Amino acid sequence: MNNIFENLPADLAREHFQDLLNTPSVRIERIVSKGHSSPEVGWYDQNEDEWVMVLQGEGTLTFADGRVVRLQSGDFIHIPAHCRHKVSHTRPDGITVWLAIFFNAAIQGPAGRAEQAADE
Amino acid sequence: MNNIFENLPADLAREHFQDLLNTPSVRIERIVSKGHSSPEVGWYDQNEDEWVMVLQGEGTLTFADGRVVRLQSGDFIHIPAHCRHKVSHTRPDGITVWLAIFFNAAIQGPAGRAEQAADE
Repeated sequence: MNNIFENLPADLAREHFQDLLNTPSVRIERIVSKGHSSPEVGWYDQNEDEWVMVLQGEGTLTFADGRVVRLQSGDFIHIPAHCRHKVSHTRPDGITVWLAIFFNAAIQGPAGRAEQAADE
Repeated sequence: MNNIFENLPADLAREHFQDLLNTPSVRIERIVSKGHSSPEVGWYDQNEDEWVMVLQGEGTLTFADGRVVRLQSGDFIHIPAHCRHKVSHTRPDGITVWLAIFFNAAIQGPAGRAEQAADE
């Protein structure tokens, strides 16, 4: 797959998760929902940071601190590690496609611009 | 800004780059092009891996190994560090919006699923 809107699952009885990239430092995932939401009880409490964008459809996130954030196409949000949240709603009448990037924000990488300068 | 299609630059005499997220380990960038391409001579030769997706419009990447990859809305590609490439074409008659994620694929993070299991 090299297009995020291709090979959408026909069976969406459950939410569908697929890795688009999986490296030791970063994981990029496609999530396809249709009327799914997190269980009534409990929160996602992740060791990794997550940066998520809705590419199609619409979803609502609820945070343990009371914030409710509705995301539509192009909307994105950064969810720091251990920021407790859940998906409280996704559209029941069409699919919602999410792009989610999981990473550890605190790790200082040897690569990047600083390294590039040091090489010169 | 919390929508990638908002606040599009009015002046696109030059390609427009904007960080959406900047952490020590991962940088997420919006790139807005309109008929821009890389200089005729030279290649991007990056210390970081890049994962890039076209969200609107169309762009073509050319690689030093001869590959030519045309990306339209929803198309994505992983460009490993030091994989020499250039943007050989973007649409001149409309804007192209790219989402680019820069990271070091080789860094093993302490967070993630393995760590989660170790915590239990």
